[in-house]
Order: sequence, then structure tokens, then C-alpha cells
Amino acid sequence: MNYRVVLNILGKVLLAEAILLLLPLISALVYRESALPFLYTMLPLLVLGGVLNRIKPVHSDFFAREGFVTVGLSWLLMSAFGALPFVLSGDIPHYIDALFETVSGFTTTGASILTDVERMSRGCMFWRLFTHWVGGMGVLVFIAAVLPISGDHYIHVMRAEVPGPTVSKLVPKARKTARILYMIYAGLTFLEFVLLMLGGMSFYEAILHAFATAGTGGFSTRGASLAAFDSVYLEMVCAVFMMLFGVNFNLFYFILLGQGLAIFKSEELRVYLALVFGSTLVIALNIMGSVGGFGQGLRYAYFQVATVMSTTGFATSDFDKWPELSRWLLVMLMFGGACAGSTAGGLKLSRIIILFKSYLYELKQLILPTRVKRIWFEGKAQSEQTVHSVLVYFATYVSIIALCVLFLSLDGHDFVTNCTASLACMSNIGPGLGLVGPAGNYAFFSVPSKLVLILEMLLGRLEIFPVLFLFSPSVWRRR
Amino acid sequence: MNYRVVLNILGKVLLAEAILLLLPLISALVYRESALPFLYTMLPLLVLGGVLNRIKPVHSDFFAREGFVTVGLSWLLMSAFGALPFVLSGDIPHYIDALFETVSGFTTTGASILTDVERMSRGCMFWRLFTHWVGGMGVLVFIAAVLPISGDHYIHVMRAEVPGPTVSKLVPKARKTARILYMIYAGLTFLEFVLLMLGGMSFYEAILHAFATAGTGGFSTRGASLAAFDSVYLEMVCAVFMMLFGVNFNLFYFILLGQGLAIFKSEELRVYLALVFGSTLVIALNIMGSVGGFGQGLRYAYFQVATVMSTTGFATSDFDKWPELSRWLLVMLMFGGACAGSTAGGLKLSRIIILFKSYLYELKQLILPTRVKRIWFEGKAQSEQTVHSVLVYFATYVSIIALCVLFLSLDGHDFVTNCTASLACMSNIGPGLGLVGPAGNYAFFSVPSKLVLILEMLLGRLEIFPVLFLFSPSVWRRR
Repeated sequence: MNYRVVLNILGKVLLAEAILLLLPLISALVYRESALPFLYTMLPLLVLGGVLNRIKPVHSDFFAREGFVTVGLSWLLMSAFGALPFVLSGDIPHYIDALFETVSGFTTTGASILTDVERMSRGCMFWRLFTHWVGGMGVLVFIAAVLPISGDHYIHVMRAEVPGPTVSKLVPKARKTARILYMIYAGLTFLEFVLLMLGGMSFYEAILHAFATAGTGGFSTRGASLAAFDSVYLEMVCAVFMMLFGVNFNLFYFILLGQGLAIFKSEELRVYLALVFGSTLVIALNIMGSVGGFGQGLRYAYFQVATVMSTTGFATSDFDKWPELSRWLLVMLMFGGACAGSTAGGLKLSRIIILFKSYLYELKQLILPTRVKRIWFEGKAQSEQTVHSVLVYFATYVSIIALCVLFLSLDGHDFVTNCTASLACMSNIGPGLGLVGPAGNYAFFSVPSKLVLILEMLLGRLEIFPVLFLFSPSVWRRR
Repeated sequence: MNYRVVLNILGKVLLAEAILLLLPLISALVYRESALPFLYTMLPLLVLGGVLNRIKPVHSDFFAREGFVTVGLSWLLMSAFGALPFVLSGDIPHYIDALFETVSGFTTTGASILTDVERMSRGCMFWRLFTHWVGGMGVLVFIAAVLPISGDHYIHVMRAEVPGPTVSKLVPKARKTARILYMIYAGLTFLEFVLLMLGGMSFYEAILHAFATAGTGGFSTRGASLAAFDSVYLEMVCAVFMMLFGVNFNLFYFILLGQGLAIFKSEELRVYLALVFGSTLVIALNIMGSVGGFGQGLRYAYFQVATVMSTTGFATSDFDKWPELSRWLLVMLMFGGACAGSTAGGLKLSRIIILFKSYLYELKQLILPTRVKRIWFEGKAQSEQTVHSVLVYFATYVSIIALCVLFLSLDGHDFVTNCTASLACMSNIGPGLGLVGPAGNYAFFSVPSKLVLILEMLLGRLEIFPVLFLFSPSVWRRR
């Protein structure tokens, strides 16, 4: 383990967080609130970050495991410090609650322990929704984009932070790839911000909801989430952008290069669109009786499918009260999530597609053992290693969700609440069914349960292994 | 596809079923009930079986796919004919209900559509519980044991019918292996029958409950299941035998060979025993407050863990009313099941162990890519093919359960009922939670839902692929 490089990058992460805190600080000043909660958080970040940043690497060895450890530790530290403003401002008095809210923010989960959202100070509310934007694309990708990181080993860090079974560099240099990703990310966010302003949202709320959509987070400035605005236009802008942020960012790059039509060659995109529109139709037909017609049904169904598949978690209606078919379909979509290489959580559709092809492959192999070929995906024959990793990832994912339900059950809440809370945190969605439904929140869980859910959100966002790495003694052994 | 061999074996299966029906026929005669329902079922079985049995194979090519197709078709035909006595006697007027009950019997699920169990005639009740015994070890294994089947290709049939990721022949000849398996099976069943008689059960009920335990089925002659007898002795006899029938039968063979201690080298057995006793302890502590002390807690917990892990499904208490921790732990155990090569259903513990080792392997490979070794299980390095199949099996298993819940949701019953009904049928257990809990039954499902559950029971018992084979056009193409 090359500790010096890891510590050096951690220093940069902490400094970056200090700089990012300037935005909520400005917001607090604008609304004439105290800036102290932010200043008191920035101080230790700057000191510790400055010290770590001075550690210079002796050699430049940097492999996958250094990448995983760096990402795992960065996210833990960022969350630990990021929770401080909530505690210092008194908005969330208990540290574990504040940590839950911060991890939920950075991991773009959007599960909240707040029972009265509107009471939060403007500065903290800015930080709360801004964490979605920071966590969506990843702070280490951000660092790669703005700082001159030497060596191309940094791709290992990006691989660990960007979701999906495989991460490809758009261009040969990791740094340039990171810049392109953040440019697309910022551009789309700005576009949504403008469209939300045009729909009558205030500057403050438009920018925050654009942040929350871009990261596919789901926090809102309102307790009733987007339903509070009661505007079909705003709902549809959010729904379309949630869907867009669930698309692999590589495809946007193709559009930038003028190869717009090429994106429809993507199997994942086609499956994504088919699932979005198919599920919308099924749910609309299923709920039309109770929401006043097919038109209203389409409105609620499309929004809900977009919010669940992109794992955002905004709410416009209480889908916990919908018929069983719609509820279960949404639960299944919660597992799947959206495309790899997007800001969405869940298993990612590319994994689901590879899984499905593995069934067919297994069946074909049993029928005609001699004629078996490789599994193809996105026009490429997938290596056995990739397919194997996808299968292991699925099994691990499901097992973690089930094991966490076991811990949550100790609190004594009902079956549906426990199962969907575990799923909604692992898939970084936020709302589930039952007590954690769109009309509920996560405040009632005990402290141990909240810690379990915090762990799950991190496992889900970082795709398990960077977090598990931190608990593996052999990672820490010097060679 | 070698159709002639397949049809020839199907003929033997139908003839075997006709002969097996002699037992319930005798039971009907003893209790002075009409023998006609059985005679009318045996007639077409004998005719069709006789015709098919006369088809002589031109060549002896017989591979895995012939094995799968034979097993899949055999089970469909056996169930289709096996349902007739229930309809002809009027005990279960609707054919789909009778089919549900028969498939539930043969697959040793034990899910029932009966609302008043005690009203069934003695002859049909005998048949109902006897199907568990027939399905437990498998009718094709039975045929191998009693008929002179030429060629060792028959091992492909046994592989498709005996559960588990790998099937080994105990002795070089498939036929002798089948005989040993059935000898152990019959011997243990007889032993339990004697012990149940000693506990005060009538001859009729003792033999039927021994059948139902041996197949890890779970049907009972009483509506209240074993709770109706209210005897700690009977409960413990059943619990111990349920546990025994969840053990890989190869281990009993070692005992017969005088290598009794060697069985504790089996990783799967050790995990099985650890899970049985660990879960019993946790549940006993969890429920002791509500059942009147730790002793009673142990009694109910041990029985329930044994019945769920062996996927039998006898009931002595309504675990649906237990605290959430116990309920969820039981649901997790329902997934796992017991050992491969036993009569139990579920995923099988050997698969769970290989899955768990795959996570560790993946983690190790990320940490130290150069030092990766193979996955070891039961003292053998597992081939990549075996591990891959286990991973695919898990993913397929979970996906089928989830997809079936989607179909069940159309009926509009609650989340917990749908999820556990799907799981309990796929894992061949029987009772779940909610409406299908130990105090409930499956009568209220619509006909399409019952068909979905029938399919699931068959998929679970035959481990998916023999059933999926029947729906794959390329299987049926002549080469």
C-alpha cells in the first residue's frame, strides 16, 4: 500500500471540501444567517487537509487497491466533516442524525431524518442539497478535473468512484475525461436551473433542485417535496432531467462530438427507455381509477418511474398508497436503477442485461454444449472476468440488503418498512414503502439502525468494494 | 434430441405412477371408501404408459439435454394425472386446485388450497401425503432403482432430478447409486414411522406423517398440522427427522460404510448444524417473552427452524405472529434451505457457501490480483464452471421469485403475502407469512396466480433448467 499517495490525495479532498463549503457560507450570509457553522467546519478541514497535502509520495505505485482505499476513506472523511454544519447550526442537534443526512446527501440517496424540513436554516439547506451535486459525479473526479494530478494512475480512483461494471476513459487522459464529465454535468445542471426558474421557482430553490436532480439525490427544500409546487411544468422538467441524469454520460459526449444518432446503438439506453416507458404505461393503467383518469395517471406514473429508476426520490404523490402491482413494479425498478456511468444508484441496467444474458447463456450451454459462444454486450464480447464480477456483485448486493434487514428488524418495525428501507438506502433512492414511504422519513430508526443504513448508503454509492476494502486487514499490510 | 428414449422413459414413469396408486387404493378399500377415483386414474396411465413403453430406442445417445427434457416432462405428466383422484372423488372439485395440491405434493412444497383438511377422504389423504414421499427422492431415481435401465447415461436423468450444484455417483453404476439412495430413504422413513407410532399416533397417521417428513413436504392429515397432536415427543421426533432429511444422503452412505466420523469433515454439514442451532438460539431468545419462557421458546424455535430449513413446512405455532427479527430470520432461512443431495428445497447451503466464498475471492482478487487461487469447497478446488453456474443459479432464482410476485400482485393481496408466497413456493416450503402464514392457506389466489405458483414449485424442485428447457424451441429441434 502506497500510503503517502493515499494521504496526499485525502489532503486534497479535505481542502476541496473546505472550498465547496464557501457556497453554503455565501448563502448563509445572503440570508443574514450566522456563517460560523461553516467557518468552524472549514477550519479543521483546511488544517488537516493542508498537513496531508504536504506529504509527498516517494514513489508513484498506484494500483486498484490504492484507488479503492482512497475513495473509501475520502467518502468517510468528507461525510464525517460534512455533518458538522448541521450540528453547529443546531438544525440537526444529534451528530449521528447529521451524519445520516450528510451521507444520504453525498451518496445521493435522499433519505432524510428531518421531520420538519422547512425549519432548516437557508445556509444548511443549501449545503444539504449541494452535497447531492458534489456526490453525484464524485469529489475525486472533481479533483481530477481541476487539479494537475500527475500520472495516469488516477484512473484507478475514478474507476472506484464512478458507478458501473466497467469504466472507460472517454479520451486517453484521465484528467481530460474528468473535465469532460464535469462539463456535461454542470451544463445539464445549468440548463435545468434555467428551466426551473422559467417555471416560477425562486433562484434559491431552482438552483438547489437542479443540484438535487443532477446528483439524482432527491432532497427537497420542501417537506412535501415537488408536490409542494403543484405544477405540471416543474414536475415534467424534473422528470425529464432525472431521466437524463440516469443516462451514461459517455453518450452525452457522443452527442457533443456530433454523433447523436450513435447513442441509440447503446443496448443499455434502449433497455432504459423501454423500461421507463413500459413501466409508466403499466402503472398509469393500474392507478388511473384512483387518480382521476388516464392523463393524471400518466403524469404521476411517469414522474414516479423517472424518480425511482434514476434513484432520485423526489415525490409528487404517495405511491405507497397505490395498488400492489404498481408498488411491486416500483420496488423491482428500485433494484435495477438506471445506466452505468450516470449519477444514478441501484444495480445499474448494464449489470441487469449481463445477468439476463448469463441465464440465456447457461441455458444454451446446457442445450448445445459444443456451440457456446461468449456473452456480447454493447457490441463487445465480454470477458469471463467481467461477467463473473457482475454475478458476484448481484449476489453480494442482494445479500447485503437481506442482512441489513435482519439488523433493522431488531427495532421491531414492520416487514415492508424494513425491506424497503434497506433496499432504498442500498440503491440510493431515499423513499421506500411503509413508514419510509414518500410521506414518511427515517427519523424513527434507532441509532444502531441508522448506522446500518449509513453503511448501506456508502456501500451502494461506492459499489461495495471500496467500503469492504477498509475492513480487510490484508489491504493494510505493507508489502 | 433422442425422442424415442425420452418417450420410452416417460412410459415407464406413467406405469410407475399407476403402480404407486395401488397404495391409496388399498387405503380407500380399508376405510370402505370408493376405489373408483384411483381405478379411473390408473386406467389411462396403464394404457398410455404401456404404449410409450413399447417405443424402442434406435440408438442410445443420451446427454444432459435429454435428461433435462425427460425429467421436466415426467413431472408435468405425473402431476397432470396425479391430480385426477382428487377431482374424481369430489374432494377437490376444481382441476386447477387439484393440480396445485398435486404439484405441491410431488415438489414437496406442502402449500395447500384446502380450507377444511379433515374433510378429505382417507384414500385421497393417503395419496396427498404419499406424493411427498414419491417426489422427495424423485420418481426417476425410483425407476432407476427398481428397473433394469441399460447404459450409464441414466446418470443424466438423476442429475436433473436430484437437487444440488453437483451430483456425484456414490458407486460407479447409476443404478446401484439409486438403490442405495432409496434404501437409506426408506430405512429412515420406517424408523420415523415406528417412533411416531410409539408416540401414540395411529398407524395411518404415523405412516403418512413419516412420508411427509421424509420428502420434507409438510402436508398433514390435520388442519392445525402437528400442533393438533400437542405432544412435545411427536414434535421433537418430527423436528429431528426433518433435520436428518435435510442432510446430504451421501453422508448417510458414509455412515453405512462405517465411516461415521468422516461426515463432520463436510463443510456443508457443519454450516447446516451451525445455522440450525444458531438460529434456534436467536429465535428462542427473541420469542421467549411471548411463549412463556426460554424452554418453550427453544421448543417452538427448534421445530420452526428445522421445518423451514428443511423446507418441510409443518407448523406447531403461528410464526407469522412472532417478532420481526424472528420472522425475517425465518424468511432468510427459507431462501437457503438445507443441504444439496437431500430431499429439501431452497437454494441449498452448498450454493450459499460457494456464493460467500465468491465474495471473498472477488475481494482478494482486487487486493492482491497476482496471488489469486481457486475457490475450495468440501476439500476440492471448484471449477470456474461450477462457481459460474452457482452464481447464475442464484441470480435466476431471485429474479424468478421477484417476477412471480409481480404476477401475484395483480390479485391485489398485500406485499408480505405476495413476497412470501412466491418465496415459499419456489423454495418448496409451503407456509409463508401474512395470508399464506401457518394459519392460512393458498385457496384465495386466483386461477392465474395458482398457475404461476404451480410453475414456481416445479422450477424450485427441479432447479429451474429442466422446466425452462421445455419452453426453449432449440431443445426440440432435431439435429
